[in-house]
Amino acid sequence: MSIPRTVYPAPFNITRASHVVMTVRDLGASRAFYVDMLGFIISDEDADTLYLRGLEEACHHSLVLKKATEAPMCERIGIRVYTEDDLEKTKAHFEHVGLPVKWVDVAHQGKTLHVSDAVGTPLEICATMPTKPRMIVKFQHFKGAYPMRLDHFQILSPDVQRACEFYAGIGFRLSEYVAIDGTDDLVFIFLQRKGNTHDLVFVNGRGPRLHHFAFSVPDSHQLIHACDVASSFGYGVKLEAGPGRHGPGHALFVYFRDPDGHRLEFFTTHYQMMDIEIEPVRWDVSYLRNRPWGLPPPKSWYEEASLFAGIEPCNPARETYTATLEGLLAEQGKRSHL
Amino acid sequence: MSIPRTVYPAPFNITRASHVVMTVRDLGASRAFYVDMLGFIISDEDADTLYLRGLEEACHHSLVLKKATEAPMCERIGIRVYTEDDLEKTKAHFEHVGLPVKWVDVAHQGKTLHVSDAVGTPLEICATMPTKPRMIVKFQHFKGAYPMRLDHFQILSPDVQRACEFYAGIGFRLSEYVAIDGTDDLVFIFLQRKGNTHDLVFVNGRGPRLHHFAFSVPDSHQLIHACDVASSFGYGVKLEAGPGRHGPGHALFVYFRDPDGHRLEFFTTHYQMMDIEIEPVRWDVSYLRNRPWGLPPPKSWYEEASLFAGIEPCNPARETYTATLEGLLAEQGKRSHL
Amino acid sequence: MSIPRTVYPAPFNITRASHVVMTVRDLGASRAFYVDMLGFIISDEDADTLYLRGLEEACHHSLVLKKATEAPMCERIGIRVYTEDDLEKTKAHFEHVGLPVKWVDVAHQGKTLHVSDAVGTPLEICATMPTKPRMIVKFQHFKGAYPMRLDHFQILSPDVQRACEFYAGIGFRLSEYVAIDGTDDLVFIFLQRKGNTHDLVFVNGRGPRLHHFAFSVPDSHQLIHACDVASSFGYGVKLEAGPGRHGPGHALFVYFRDPDGHRLEFFTTHYQMMDIEIEPVRWDVSYLRNRPWGLPPPKSWYEEASLFAGIEPCNPARETYTATLEGLLAEQGKRSHL
Amino acid sequence: MSIPRTVYPAPFNITRASHVVMTVRDLGASRAFYVDMLGFIISDEDADTLYLRGLEEACHHSLVLKKATEAPMCERIGIRVYTEDDLEKTKAHFEHVGLPVKWVDVAHQGKTLHVSDAVGTPLEICATMPTKPRMIVKFQHFKGAYPMRLDHFQILSPDVQRACEFYAGIGFRLSEYVAIDGTDDLVFIFLQRKGNTHDLVFVNGRGPRLHHFAFSVPDSHQLIHACDVASSFGYGVKLEAGPGRHGPGHALFVYFRDPDGHRLEFFTTHYQMMDIEIEPVRWDVSYLRNRPWGLPPPKSWYEEASLFAGIEPCNPARETYTATLEGLLAEQGKRSHL
Repeated sequence: MSIPRTVYPAPFNITRASHVVMTVRDLGASRAFYVDMLGFIISDEDADTLYLRGLEEACHHSLVLKKATEAPMCERIGIRVYTEDDLEKTKAHFEHVGLPVKWVDVAHQGKTLHVSDAVGTPLEICATMPTKPRMIVKFQHFKGAYPMRLDHFQILSPDVQRACEFYAGIGFRLSEYVAIDGTDDLVFIFLQRKGNTHDLVFVNGRGPRLHHFAFSVPDSHQLIHACDVASSFGYGVKLEAGPGRHGPGHALFVYFRDPDGHRLEFFTTHYQMMDIEIEPVRWDVSYLRNRPWGLPPPKSWYEEASLFAGIEPCNPARETYTATLEGLLAEQGKRSHL
Repeated sequence: MSIPRTVYPAPFNITRASHVVMTVRDLGASRAFYVDMLGFIISDEDADTLYLRGLEEACHHSLVLKKATEAPMCERIGIRVYTEDDLEKTKAHFEHVGLPVKWVDVAHQGKTLHVSDAVGTPLEICATMPTKPRMIVKFQHFKGAYPMRLDHFQILSPDVQRACEFYAGIGFRLSEYVAIDGTDDLVFIFLQRKGNTHDLVFVNGRGPRLHHFAFSVPDSHQLIHACDVASSFGYGVKLEAGPGRHGPGHALFVYFRDPDGHRLEFFTTHYQMMDIEIEPVRWDVSYLRNRPWGLPPPKSWYEEASLFAGIEPCNPARETYTATLEGLLAEQGKRSHL
Repeated sequence: MSIPRTVYPAPFNITRASHVVMTVRDLGASRAFYVDMLGFIISDEDADTLYLRGLEEACHHSLVLKKATEAPMCERIGIRVYTEDDLEKTKAHFEHVGLPVKWVDVAHQGKTLHVSDAVGTPLEICATMPTKPRMIVKFQHFKGAYPMRLDHFQILSPDVQRACEFYAGIGFRLSEYVAIDGTDDLVFIFLQRKGNTHDLVFVNGRGPRLHHFAFSVPDSHQLIHACDVASSFGYGVKLEAGPGRHGPGHALFVYFRDPDGHRLEFFTTHYQMMDIEIEPVRWDVSYLRNRPWGLPPPKSWYEEASLFAGIEPCNPARETYTATLEGLLAEQGKRSHL
Repeated sequence: MSIPRTVYPAPFNITRASHVVMTVRDLGASRAFYVDMLGFIISDEDADTLYLRGLEEACHHSLVLKKATEAPMCERIGIRVYTEDDLEKTKAHFEHVGLPVKWVDVAHQGKTLHVSDAVGTPLEICATMPTKPRMIVKFQHFKGAYPMRLDHFQILSPDVQRACEFYAGIGFRLSEYVAIDGTDDLVFIFLQRKGNTHDLVFVNGRGPRLHHFAFSVPDSHQLIHACDVASSFGYGVKLEAGPGRHGPGHALFVYFRDPDGHRLEFFTTHYQMMDIEIEPVRWDVSYLRNRPWGLPPPKSWYEEASLFAGIEPCNPARETYTATLEGLLAEQGKRSHL
C-alpha cells in the first residue's frame, strides 16, 4: 500500500468539520455537563433537542444533543461545504462513486445531504446555517473549558487505508499519519481541509465508531481550569485522560467522558497547515512507547467509543495495530502504573 | 459608496499572508531584538540578510531583514498562492487590470512575482518555499514572545475604498470594517483568505505605508512574558501600545517598535471566519472613544509607519477620519492621561 | 535622615494586613462591581453593609462596604495581631506613645481596637474573626479577577520618614524603598509583617489618604481576564492603569477605580521576604523615568485618592517628590503619549 | 490519640523550610536536569557540589547536590530559625528533650546545627546564609519550570503521631491532616511555620525517608511548560505523576524523578494560613478514592523514596494505612487504568 495523493482541484469545496449529532439519555444531565459545567452556549432547545455552539462560533450549532429513544449513540458527523453549488456537486460525486446519498430536512440548517463515506461513516453535509452572535468577547459568560469551536472528529475504522484513499480523492490533505514500523500500513491518519492539522482522524479499530469530537480552547490555563471546574461539580472522575501532550499534531489535550460515555477532547496548539510543499509527517507506531509526556491513558481510551446509529461495527481485517497495542498495554502495566 | 462583494470563485487561489521584507540599519541589533529577545528562529543568514520564521512555521521565512543601504523601509509584503498554476493566473490577472507585474528571482523562494496592488502596495507573490523543521514542540528553544506564525499586515492607504474593491475582486472576504458613523465611508477594512479574521488590513491615512506586521502567540501569558523579557533586556520602552483588547477582530495585543522603528504586533484570540453565510461586522468609527479596555495608544501609533522602498506616500483625499482622530486625541489628552 | 531599623522582638505580634472599610453611595452598584464582575465572595450583607472576602480567605471579611451618609471615603484599614493578648499589648503600646486608642464593638470581628498611627492613619486592629469556608477550590464560583486575598494598602502621607520610624518601631520590616536620588529622603516605603514584600506602603503626598488596597490574583491570565470581564460589563474605562510591571516589589499589576472612585489593585508575583539577613532594596526615584514596562499611568493615578473619614489631609512639607513627579509628567506628555 | 495543640509562644522561632542536601551519582547529569532543563539558578559550584536556588530566592542555596560516594541519598533537610539567638535556644531545646544536636561548619551558611527530630529525620538548622541577587525579574534567564522558591518537604515516617506531637511542641501549626476514617489515627500531617499550608509533611510509611521536596512555580502555565520542556529534552518519562489537583492543601502539582530517582514536586495554589482562629482541616483517608482530578499516581509514587544518609528506615507499627493503600491500588487496577 502507499500514501494516497490529494486530488486538486477537489471535485467540490469542503471547508471544515461542522457539527456532530449525539443521542443522550437525559437532556438535563447533558445540559448540566456541557452548559453549566463546561461552558457551551445554548443556541436553541426544545423538549427533545439541545443545540449548542462554542464561544467563537457564529454558526447555529456545532454540537446537537437529542433525547435517545434507545442506547446513546452518534447519529452523524457534520461537514461543511462552501456553497449550495458545492452541495449539488457533492451529491453528484457520491452518486457517481455509488455511495448512499439523499436530501433531508434538518432544523436550523440550510439544504442538507445525508451520505455515507467509503468506510461507512454517516455524514451530514450542508453549506449554511442560521447565524448566532459570536460570544467571543462576552467574557462574563465564559465558564469551564471556554470551548471555542469544534475542530475535528476521530473515527475508529477497520480500514484506514480505504478511508485515506476516499478522503484524498475529495480533496482532503494528509497532515500526519502513523504507520506500523517499517511499512506503509496506516494506523492513524490526520486529514484536513480548513488549514490546520485535522478535520477528520481515522484510527484502526473496530468501527465505524466515533472515538471523540474535539473543541479548541484558548490556552493551557483553560484545560486545567476545565478539570478544576469539573472536579468542583463532582465530575473529576469524568476526566479520562490527560493533561498530556500528543505526538502527532502536537496538541496539549484532556479527554472527558460525558454522562452517556461519549468522549470529547479539549486541546490547544494545532498548527497552520496549508502550503502545497508540506509533506505529511510520518510516525512509526512505536512512538506510542515514547510519548512526549503524560500518564498513559487507561484501556478504556483505546477500546471504548460511541456507536453510530443503526450501524454495526466490524473488526479490522488486519490485526497488526491491535497486537502492538496489547503489547503496549501489557508493558505499561508492568511499569508499575496502576 | 458601498461595501464590495467578494468574487467567487476567485480568479486565482491566494492562501494567506506569507512574509515581509524589511530593511534595517544594523543586522546585529535586529538579531538581538528578534532572535535573542523575542524568540524568532533563524532559517538562514548571510552578511546582508537574516531569514527568520516563527516557531510553528515550516516555510523557510516569514520575516526577512536586509541590511539597509538607505533609511530603513519595508521592501515588500509577501502573499502565498496555492500552486504555480495559480501564480501564472495571478500574473495574467494583474496584466489584465493594468497593474505592474514581473517575474523575479528571490533566494529561498519558488517562482516569484513582484506586483503592485491597486493602491500602490508592493507585493511579492509565490507558491512555494523550501521547508524547515517546525519548532512547535522544541520547547527548550522557546524564548520571549514564543512567536508562532505570521498572521497579517496592516497598511496605511489614502484610498481604503479602492483597496477594498480590488481585494474583494480577487477573492478576499471582508470580515470586519470600520466606517464613519452614519455612512459607508471605509476607515478600516479587515480582509482574509486563510479562514481567520485577517490577512490584510487597510486603514485610512498617509500611504501606502506599512503600519505593522503581526505574529500570533500561544496565549495571554506570552504577551506578558514578551513584555517582561523585553524589559529585562532594557527594551521595555520598545513596547509602544498594549496590552489591550481590540474592538474589531477582538485580539488581545501588544505592539513593539523594533530598533529601526518598524512596528510589530503580537496577538491572540482571532476567530475562524470561513462560512459563506457570515456577513462582515460593521463598527462605527466612534467605537474608538469606547474601546474594550487598555490605556490609549500614543500619538506615534496613529502617525508613524514604515515607508515602502521607492514609493512616495500620499495624503488621503478625504479627511473625515483624520478629523475624527484629532478629536479623539484631543479628548484623551483632556482625560488627564499623560 | 536615615533608614530606621526594625525593633526585634516586636512589642506585640502584628501578623498581616487584614481588611478595609470603605463607604459607597450605592451598595447595589458596588455589589455589581465587586461581586458580579470581579468575583468577590459575599460573607454577609444587610441593608447598609456588604461584607466581602477573597476566594482563599477563611476570615469573615477583608473588604467591608458601607452605605455612605456623606461623600464616599475610607473609614479604616484593618490590621491583624496574632492573639488577644497581643491586642492588650497593642493598646498599652499606643497609650504609651500617646496615640489615640479605644475599644470598639465591630460586627463579625473579635475584640477590636481603634487607633491612629503616628501619621494619622485610622487603623482597626483585631485578633480574630468568625470563619467562613475557603472557596479556593470552589472553581465553579470563580469569576472576573479570581481575587484570592487582601494583601496590602498604599497610603499617601506627607511624612513618610515618620511613618517608617513608627512602623519599624512596632516590628515592621522595610523590604524596599524609594528615595530622592543621592539622599535618604524617603518617597515610597514598603513595610511587611506577613513574610512577603508588603502589608503597608506609604508614599509621599497629600495625606493621610488611601491610595489603594490590593488583592492577589492567581496569575497573569487572571489580570487580563479581569480586564476582559470588566469590558464585557461596560466597565473597561474603570481600568485606570496597567497591565504593567512595577519596579519596587516587581508585581505585575492592574488598577481599577470602583463606582465611587476608590482604587483597587490586582497583582501577582510578590516574593517571600522573611530572612534576617535580607537588607531593604533601595530605588532612586529617577527609576520612574525607566519603568520595567507598561504605558505610563494617567495623572489621576498620582493625584487622586480616597479620604479617610473625618480626617483632613495635609500637603507634604517637603516638595522634592512632587517636583520630580511634575517633571516626569511633563516629559511623558512630550513623548507624545496622549 | 488526639490532635496535639501548637505550643505558643514557641520555644524558639523557626521561620520556614530552608534547603535540602542530596547526593547524586553524576553532577553533570544533575546540572543538565536541574539547571539547563528546569531552570534552577547556580549560586556556586565546585568539583563535588552544586549549590542551587530558585528564581525569587536571595538566600545562597535551597538545593545542594553533592557527588555521592555511595548510593544517592538525602543527607539532611534544612530549616531556618530567625536569629542566631533562636539557634542557641534550638540547641538548648533539643538537648533538653534528649535528641542529638551538634554545631557544624557548613559552607555558604551561617552558624549551623545538626539535629535529629523525634522520628529520626536528620535536620540542618541555621539562621543566616550569604545573599545572592534575586532573579525574579531577570526574565531572560527563566527556563523550564521557572522554580521560584523551596516550599516544603514530605517525609515518610512510621510514627506520624509522634512527629505531630514533636513539631506542635516547637510551634508548628497543623493546617490539614488525613486520618483513618472514624478515628484520629494520623496518616498525613501538614505542618507550617511560614504562614502558608506547609513547611513539613509527614506521611505514614517505611521511614524516615524523604518522599519529595517541593518548589513553587508562578502558575499552571509553568507546570505544563515544565512537562513540555522536559519532553523536548527527552525527559518526558521523568514525569512520575500529575498534572493533577491535590485534596489536602489544594495544590495543582506535577512530580518529577531526577536522574538519581529523587522526587521533586512543582506546584501552585497554596493558601495563606496564619490566623489563630483557623482550625486544622480534617480529611478521611477514603478521600483518596475520590481525588479532585488527575490520573492516579503509579505504585512507585507510593512506595519509593530517598533514604537519609546513614539511617536505616523502619516499617510502621500500625498497618492501617498500608492496608487502605493496597485496597486502593487494587481497585484502581480494576478500573482498567493501565
